[in-house]
Amino acid sequence: MSAADSSASPSAGIVAGVAAGGVPGTEFSAWDVRTGTARSTVFRDASADDVDAAVTAAARAFRGAQLEDSALSPATLVSAIADALDARVDELIAIAALETGLDPDARLRGEVARTSGQLRMLGAEAERRSGAFLAEDPPVPEQSLPGLVLGQVPIGPVGVFGASNFPFAFGVLGGDTAAALAAGCPVVAKGHPAHPETSELLGAIATAAVSELGLDPGWFSLLQGRGESVGSAITVSPELEAVAFTGSTRGGLALSDLAARRPRPIPVFAELGGINALYLLPAAAASPNESFISGLAGSLTNNGGQLCTKPGLLVLVGDEAGLSVVTELARVLGGIETAPLLTGGTRAAFATGVDRLAAIEGVSILHAARGEVPAGAPVPSAVAVLSSAALRADPSAADEIFGPAVVVIVCADADDLLSVVEVIPPGLTGTIHAADGDHALLPPLMRRLRLRVGRVLFGGYPTGVRVGSATTHGGPFPATTTPWTTSVGARAIDRFVRPVTYQNLPDSLRATALAWS
Amino acid sequence: MSAADSSASPSAGIVAGVAAGGVPGTEFSAWDVRTGTARSTVFRDASADDVDAAVTAAARAFRGAQLEDSALSPATLVSAIADALDARVDELIAIAALETGLDPDARLRGEVARTSGQLRMLGAEAERRSGAFLAEDPPVPEQSLPGLVLGQVPIGPVGVFGASNFPFAFGVLGGDTAAALAAGCPVVAKGHPAHPETSELLGAIATAAVSELGLDPGWFSLLQGRGESVGSAITVSPELEAVAFTGSTRGGLALSDLAARRPRPIPVFAELGGINALYLLPAAAASPNESFISGLAGSLTNNGGQLCTKPGLLVLVGDEAGLSVVTELARVLGGIETAPLLTGGTRAAFATGVDRLAAIEGVSILHAARGEVPAGAPVPSAVAVLSSAALRADPSAADEIFGPAVVVIVCADADDLLSVVEVIPPGLTGTIHAADGDHALLPPLMRRLRLRVGRVLFGGYPTGVRVGSATTHGGPFPATTTPWTTSVGARAIDRFVRPVTYQNLPDSLRATALAWS
Repeated sequence: MSAADSSASPSAGIVAGVAAGGVPGTEFSAWDVRTGTARSTVFRDASADDVDAAVTAAARAFRGAQLEDSALSPATLVSAIADALDARVDELIAIAALETGLDPDARLRGEVARTSGQLRMLGAEAERRSGAFLAEDPPVPEQSLPGLVLGQVPIGPVGVFGASNFPFAFGVLGGDTAAALAAGCPVVAKGHPAHPETSELLGAIATAAVSELGLDPGWFSLLQGRGESVGSAITVSPELEAVAFTGSTRGGLALSDLAARRPRPIPVFAELGGINALYLLPAAAASPNESFISGLAGSLTNNGGQLCTKPGLLVLVGDEAGLSVVTELARVLGGIETAPLLTGGTRAAFATGVDRLAAIEGVSILHAARGEVPAGAPVPSAVAVLSSAALRADPSAADEIFGPAVVVIVCADADDLLSVVEVIPPGLTGTIHAADGDHALLPPLMRRLRLRVGRVLFGGYPTGVRVGSATTHGGPFPATTTPWTTSVGARAIDRFVRPVTYQNLPDSLRATALAWS
Repeated sequence: MSAADSSASPSAGIVAGVAAGGVPGTEFSAWDVRTGTARSTVFRDASADDVDAAVTAAARAFRGAQLEDSALSPATLVSAIADALDARVDELIAIAALETGLDPDARLRGEVARTSGQLRMLGAEAERRSGAFLAEDPPVPEQSLPGLVLGQVPIGPVGVFGASNFPFAFGVLGGDTAAALAAGCPVVAKGHPAHPETSELLGAIATAAVSELGLDPGWFSLLQGRGESVGSAITVSPELEAVAFTGSTRGGLALSDLAARRPRPIPVFAELGGINALYLLPAAAASPNESFISGLAGSLTNNGGQLCTKPGLLVLVGDEAGLSVVTELARVLGGIETAPLLTGGTRAAFATGVDRLAAIEGVSILHAARGEVPAGAPVPSAVAVLSSAALRADPSAADEIFGPAVVVIVCADADDLLSVVEVIPPGLTGTIHAADGDHALLPPLMRRLRLRVGRVLFGGYPTGVRVGSATTHGGPFPATTTPWTTSVGARAIDRFVRPVTYQNLPDSLRATALAWS
């Protein structure tokens, strides 16, 4: 579908990009990242009126669903969207491959499946929660204590800001939208300017599902925008109740700051990514580790290293075994052709990041082609090596580099490795690779690591997040702005509901209290 | 104990008020509210160095507890504090009665029991949580899915700002401190300047318990202060991880704003109170309702009406039965002698609030002695009556008045009553009184009300919060700044822990992962 198609149906609540007539400076094109050329479709930043209309429609849809009995549960909606995604997977991956350079079959087809799977899972979670109260305190008449039951209610309209690097799983119908809709919260989604045509198609799928179910069109709106004004306008919109964001620290903090300064502050659930350290303990480094090295090389170059769970730091002890792992890793990486980076901005930031690293005192770059990389070409991966002492002297050496780069921290001994945990900034994950001889190090390392991350892995690699009931995709700031939440898994829904206690609830109202969304 | 006593033991981590030597303008006295005279004890605002020392000590204690195996669980500490509170109840209520004017036996003795009870309950909740993971996803080898278990970790040092109106249950050893300590988070508490001597005694009890258990003294520190600088300094202290606050909207928002602008933002869990509406439905108003009226009069004058759950709004239909309830309520209130208000500031704010109400177009004041009330004297209660139309014209008529005042909203009919729910600001609670003939109104009223409050009551009165596993003491802004939390009950602990997922956790580390605090 073209942008013009959806702009012809404004009654559906979608404010699409239009091909002409925008304010100068507010138009932008979709790009073919493989050729580095603009595509013919032109979008414009949503206006303040567009934002107002979308949020007002969302608030109206929310109020209608909450105040009237409806035959439809939010689970029905997310399930219908999931089915439509699966049915149109070929179209979706074709356009996303053009806009992102990600491999349609090796990567994007699976991401669509994950996205529809996560919609269904969150719908099922919402249904499950409607079956029982979260807690009950029976009345105690002899102490005059009333009976309490703990239910939940959705919070209302949610603004969703998708990420550049996952056009589906963290896109306009990604995990945040799935969790919000399943919770019973209408969504105003902002398409990422790196893939506006993919966003437009996703938006049309959601709008069609809303329409086919006979729901209020305010349940889902898509706004396009390249400039910061669109995101700001959504965030300060009076009837909005929360923002979910996946992206840069700068962007997430700007929205958090705006939201905190509203007359009625609202939460911003911002997943900011950051570094993911992998700790290779001495006995594991000394064990046969060919598969470890190829696994690590794969995890950090997979999708061009453009994953928020990319293992960007390797921490090890600088004995003979440790140093040979570094050499071997650099050799293996040299033989891997990575994916092209997502945008021109990503390419420029990667080059700047590697240059910045190389300029830090004590850093050696073992392997990296430097300089300009043409659009569509893979970026050679980079391995930077420095001592833990050099890291302590300049902790910015551990800053995230988005793309196929890894920083190796060489520690003096096991004690040094334990204490360096607290020098490395908090992140989404921390991974421990240990062998039998590392037994004594495991408890102290785990104790340190769990204070710094949302997920501690024993073996394996942090990329490839299992979407389950025990998933945490989050962590202390700067991994997220809300460390008590997860943006992936069944508990992602918790961000969009709040508890409500019913005191001495009559039996006749029990079903209404349970049917919260 | 005197302030000087505890300042003699700075090694205990307590920064107490001292009797002399402060910077001019930073000293303040304890007051005898019953006589309106200053007591001999003089306190001073904690200095920036005092704050720094307390938070640094808390961070050190936290790090020590997390990184080393300890025979002591936080549950042991909260239980020891609870025992000490019960043992010293007579001392505690004697000093608190002087400083607050609250009745030592009718009110304060029970509040101490609630406070020790809530310490023990939260300790038991922490122990319970150490027995099992929150969720488990077993591995699925055929799909290469790793096993996940969901644990939790405490977040670190917490700043606690107690309330003026509950010297014990929401004081320096109140629910926030209990939840933080039980979660494994050291506490830096700020005493409320309305009762510094009570705070000092509570602080000494906690410090002694910490010391007797051989724990790091940084587990609990008390800072005194009347000026805003102390609260600000605690909130921006770099190693602090969260703030829990109970008090005014202005104060809570100021701290939230500060916390959001830190280089590393932290959450402020602020319970701000607000209005609590009671909806008297038409059939209930027409039923014999003498006990309803006396119950309501008791609930709103209890403790001088200085409770955040005071039913400050009565909403009813202006038929004959409804209007007779208003007349009768005013008559009954006229015969009740209320408690003196907590401070001179509270007295002044109450008088201003009633004057402000009286000046609103359409408001009649049925019963109120106006003008100056001497210290130690009870304040006559006030009944303001206005139509729902007058409320819609000036919604500030529903603003909270702290003290024995009730605003009656007279609706045209049942539909008007339903729609006025959305004009009344969100609050902690909403109460419904219904009789058989009101059956049809219950579902739509409950649906509207649960979007606006944290607790919906059927019958009864909102004062007297049951501290249970299903308790919500919270609600949408402006009831709190964090609507997804509760500050009372077992789930209050959730504010001070965050989730952590262990992927492929070895069996040998399971016990360490479970022992999170």
